[in-house]
Amino acid sequence: MNLLEHLNWRYATKKMNGNKVDQEKVDQIVEAARLAPTSSGLHPFKIIEISNPELKQKIQPIAFNQSQIVDSSHLLVFAAYDEYTQERVDAPFKQQEVERGLPAGFADDYKNSLFTSLQAKTKEQHFEHAARQAYIGFGLAIAAAAELKVDATPMEGFIPQQLDELLGLDKLGLRSVTILALGYRDEQNDWLLNMKKVRVLKEDFVINFN
Amino acid sequence: MNLLEHLNWRYATKKMNGNKVDQEKVDQIVEAARLAPTSSGLHPFKIIEISNPELKQKIQPIAFNQSQIVDSSHLLVFAAYDEYTQERVDAPFKQQEVERGLPAGFADDYKNSLFTSLQAKTKEQHFEHAARQAYIGFGLAIAAAAELKVDATPMEGFIPQQLDELLGLDKLGLRSVTILALGYRDEQNDWLLNMKKVRVLKEDFVINFN
Repeated sequence: MNLLEHLNWRYATKKMNGNKVDQEKVDQIVEAARLAPTSSGLHPFKIIEISNPELKQKIQPIAFNQSQIVDSSHLLVFAAYDEYTQERVDAPFKQQEVERGLPAGFADDYKNSLFTSLQAKTKEQHFEHAARQAYIGFGLAIAAAAELKVDATPMEGFIPQQLDELLGLDKLGLRSVTILALGYRDEQNDWLLNMKKVRVLKEDFVINFN
Repeated sequence: MNLLEHLNWRYATKKMNGNKVDQEKVDQIVEAARLAPTSSGLHPFKIIEISNPELKQKIQPIAFNQSQIVDSSHLLVFAAYDEYTQERVDAPFKQQEVERGLPAGFADDYKNSLFTSLQAKTKEQHFEHAARQAYIGFGLAIAAAAELKVDATPMEGFIPQQLDELLGLDKLGLRSVTILALGYRDEQNDWLLNMKKVRVLKEDFVINFN
């Protein structure tokens, strides 16, 4: 099975060599995240795609000076909605109406019930729910990079509030949740490259009710 | 690119036909989630694999009577750690020591600093962090199912506390976060099957700093 081979090939690259990833490949990785299924189709996250060297240099201290921030080709910052507003809930249903040629208001009952249940939750609960959806896209982007033999480092080690401010995400109602650094491994200098992949054992991972 | 084709093929199957998915395929889907990268390698989630018909019937009312719960072949319940304990943080580092033949305590500085930062957070923050990691595995399981042409419905519509109690997850320090129902589409009776896939437009999804 191809995906399993790709996932076994990949690893969290610790040292990248600065080589560029073709934009076509970056676009395919982003496309995998765009195709992610999300709760009620709300797609409550965006990707901030960064290749600008000066901006990456400004991000590095926010990310505890990790080298991949500047040695990568592109950073994909996954940023989730800070809350579900009426407008943000309406938009995907409106889009479905248009793209599927459905009657106006076809899903109003469902949508109104969804919005009512969301209104009973806090803004922080909205954000945590949106963040989880972002991680579905994050998983698919990691899979896409591996298929393209692009190295990708998943990075949570940064200060979200500082990154949001630097990128102006706070003004867009977005909060950064994770980064995927894309690039190519530095084969001479990456200590993790030749280490065995270690994962939880299957018997400790799966509980069966068969 | 294969993954994009697979993701375009898949959809959130609304009506399944009751046919069984070969165990070998279920195992491959679970394996994709097992290979998920997670924060500091903590892998803070498990999969509860359910094919038992009586148990699925008990789950159905907890999941708002959605038909896929009983018409699926298998349910994969993704359940995250309710908190990060010292033991749960120690275990993956111990496993790395053994499997990689590293000196005992090789990562103690990193691990202790990680545990100190976790101790400054609430149990609920631990859980939310663990839940996000579970969604990386969830995304990879969705990709794996699509590659195998197994239909898969991502389902958040259930009452987690009731499911946790039914499955005894609360006693294991786990909290259910999402379900992936695996099976095969009922081509005659699934209203969503022939609908156009609708996703956020790329121009509304990506913010560029290139």
